[in-house]
Amino acid sequence: MSMRDSDCFVEIDADRLWADIETNAEFGAIALDAEKPNERGRTVLTGSDADKRARTYLLERLQAAGFEVRIDAVGNIAGRWTPPQVEDDAMPIATGSHLDSVPRGGIFDGPLGVYAGVEAVRAIQESPSQPACPIEVVAFTEEEGARFGTGLLGSSVAAGKREVSSALELTDSDGETLGSALDRIGFRGDDEINPATWGSWLELHIEQGLRLVEAGAPVGVVKSIVGITNCRIVVEGVTNHAGTTAMETRTDALTAANELMLEIERLGNEAGSPTVATVGQLDISPSARNAIPGEVTFTLDMRSDNRDMIDSVIGSIREQATRVERDRGVSVTVDRYRDRPPTQLSERCVKIAQQSARECGIEAPVLHSGGLHDTAMVAACTDTAMLFAPSVDGVSHTPKEWTDPDDCVTATTVLAQALCRLPKT
Amino acid sequence: MSMRDSDCFVEIDADRLWADIETNAEFGAIALDAEKPNERGRTVLTGSDADKRARTYLLERLQAAGFEVRIDAVGNIAGRWTPPQVEDDAMPIATGSHLDSVPRGGIFDGPLGVYAGVEAVRAIQESPSQPACPIEVVAFTEEEGARFGTGLLGSSVAAGKREVSSALELTDSDGETLGSALDRIGFRGDDEINPATWGSWLELHIEQGLRLVEAGAPVGVVKSIVGITNCRIVVEGVTNHAGTTAMETRTDALTAANELMLEIERLGNEAGSPTVATVGQLDISPSARNAIPGEVTFTLDMRSDNRDMIDSVIGSIREQATRVERDRGVSVTVDRYRDRPPTQLSERCVKIAQQSARECGIEAPVLHSGGLHDTAMVAACTDTAMLFAPSVDGVSHTPKEWTDPDDCVTATTVLAQALCRLPKT
Repeated sequence: MSMRDSDCFVEIDADRLWADIETNAEFGAIALDAEKPNERGRTVLTGSDADKRARTYLLERLQAAGFEVRIDAVGNIAGRWTPPQVEDDAMPIATGSHLDSVPRGGIFDGPLGVYAGVEAVRAIQESPSQPACPIEVVAFTEEEGARFGTGLLGSSVAAGKREVSSALELTDSDGETLGSALDRIGFRGDDEINPATWGSWLELHIEQGLRLVEAGAPVGVVKSIVGITNCRIVVEGVTNHAGTTAMETRTDALTAANELMLEIERLGNEAGSPTVATVGQLDISPSARNAIPGEVTFTLDMRSDNRDMIDSVIGSIREQATRVERDRGVSVTVDRYRDRPPTQLSERCVKIAQQSARECGIEAPVLHSGGLHDTAMVAACTDTAMLFAPSVDGVSHTPKEWTDPDDCVTATTVLAQALCRLPKT
Repeated sequence: MSMRDSDCFVEIDADRLWADIETNAEFGAIALDAEKPNERGRTVLTGSDADKRARTYLLERLQAAGFEVRIDAVGNIAGRWTPPQVEDDAMPIATGSHLDSVPRGGIFDGPLGVYAGVEAVRAIQESPSQPACPIEVVAFTEEEGARFGTGLLGSSVAAGKREVSSALELTDSDGETLGSALDRIGFRGDDEINPATWGSWLELHIEQGLRLVEAGAPVGVVKSIVGITNCRIVVEGVTNHAGTTAMETRTDALTAANELMLEIERLGNEAGSPTVATVGQLDISPSARNAIPGEVTFTLDMRSDNRDMIDSVIGSIREQATRVERDRGVSVTVDRYRDRPPTQLSERCVKIAQQSARECGIEAPVLHSGGLHDTAMVAACTDTAMLFAPSVDGVSHTPKEWTDPDDCVTATTVLAQALCRLPKT
């Protein structure tokens, strides 16, 4: 369906949007493979030279489009564009995402939302629409937590969930603090960026899953963000010589852990979508070819849009741990060290986003988000929703991460349309 | 039973034996825990300062007891004692073991066999017995393979199974060669140590298992050494985001690997003692809390006294790998990179060892060895058997490794008795 046949009243400049995404992709770029033109990787860790270049380019683009720029104490960046007919102190609406990446990550996760915000405002500026309030475009610091170990860092400080001082004292693996890293790149500011001052927030992000691809939809609307529980599970057995210890006298921590991990997979399957349960890391002690494992530690990452479901599955995992202890003579501890409840986004914002998509001729599926996003923090302060753009093959956090440029344009069009609709009337 | 009531004609000096074991335990000793007086650990890596001190002390003890010492090109040490009435060029018999250890290993694994050999000869010297041939006491280099990655290294060179030059070029994790390490400690010799010149070989070693403890026997006789097969098993799935990828669309390499590892345990159990199958090491890629494992690599260590049994279990593991591939959409490779057949020791030597134990009033169980020992190499060149002393709780390769001093004396007494019986008549 062509968007010109619809009620869409903003027109995105596809080339201008793509040029920003491509330019941003150069900062921290990892070597291209000529045989894989659709693989573009980058490593942009907070406070690195690549981060400085990415931030500096954003400032240039914001200033070129008539935004007033602020930088806060943890390096969050906000640009505000105030339409000519609007009072300077009118309550703004906001959009944005983040510019940092995981090591060897992709070029869309984060930057798409930032530059779609910039382009949406530019398109609005050129359109006949007259927005009722200022629009802010935001880039939050350290969303991925890849350098300082804590994801959603900038947004959690902005949302008042974390003290500025404690954030600045976080250290990377070399002992450098966030404060020192921001000083070095010149992005420790003293402006205020406070989501509670925004009338609404709408973040565009890649889906990192397959539901839009499977639905054949170029954009989706997110109504909830999953809750996450993390556990550290330790299985203690008895290490011994792998050659001289008969099978029937062993207390093997690894085979006990194998059994428990298969139960976790079964419980995740039984819980049904969107609940997921994943073991992603595992360490064995002593880790020798010829030693029976005496201790195995593994991580559990469990997510659901339903908090009761999370509690129920964790309860079942503890029961299975007790059964494995009894059957195999091992000792199992399940340390639930992180418990973040699901976030319900604003019905009003979700409806406006859906309506905006319809005006652009698109029936946007309503989804949950299986990944965390800065929106989960902003949602504590104001009305929020998210838009998702399709991820080819559902992959992210790798140079294989890809979103079709046409889908980027469509999602940005819906974002611009919604930004005009969001102000409370 | 007191040994004085028996036909035992050598008397071990328990204090002299224990003093050697204790002195040797100081080289590379790890800090003692005052609350655990029976835990004595040491780290003696080939070519280290601790190794130099251990070797130097052995030379002193050999020379003090009238041995003529030789050192070969890979640092193997042999001391020869020729009884007064025996021709210098008569074919000797030999005993010994090794002085190197695993990191944080115990004080008996290796040194017991070396210093039992030294003490056995000293006791024979003081006894009325007149041995028919010279006796050699040997300490082989790098039995554990803990520094240069290849176990049974010195004995495999002595037995002609490995070239001197290739052994000397082996490197440690820092790139230093065995040749350079031996030069640095002054233990690269030019003498010949050749097991084919020995009429028989008898090695005393700790059992590293529970059978002697369970049988209540202070010494056992080994009639075979297990064969070992090692495989590297790689399970390839598809990595993806742990939050956004629904359970039913995953190809998780770790849960597939869990299933295969449990099958390996089941097949090991079904094969029955002495067959064992162990997964001791496992690596996950990408190894992130929030990423579905895309690739899992693990080791298999499988041992049996029956080669057909090893081949049969490996065949069943391959069948299970194919089933898991089919059920889960992963790809599994099983690389059987090492295949050492079981070693049958000499019936003659086993009988003499049993008879010698009986003369000391002991009914020694006949066992297989689940661990590899230098004897497996020497067995290619001459008649061999082994004696085992009991390991408390069956443990080894840890500071908890322990053998009761009385059991050390009993086993050394049987060794000395057997050394007098072994010469072919």
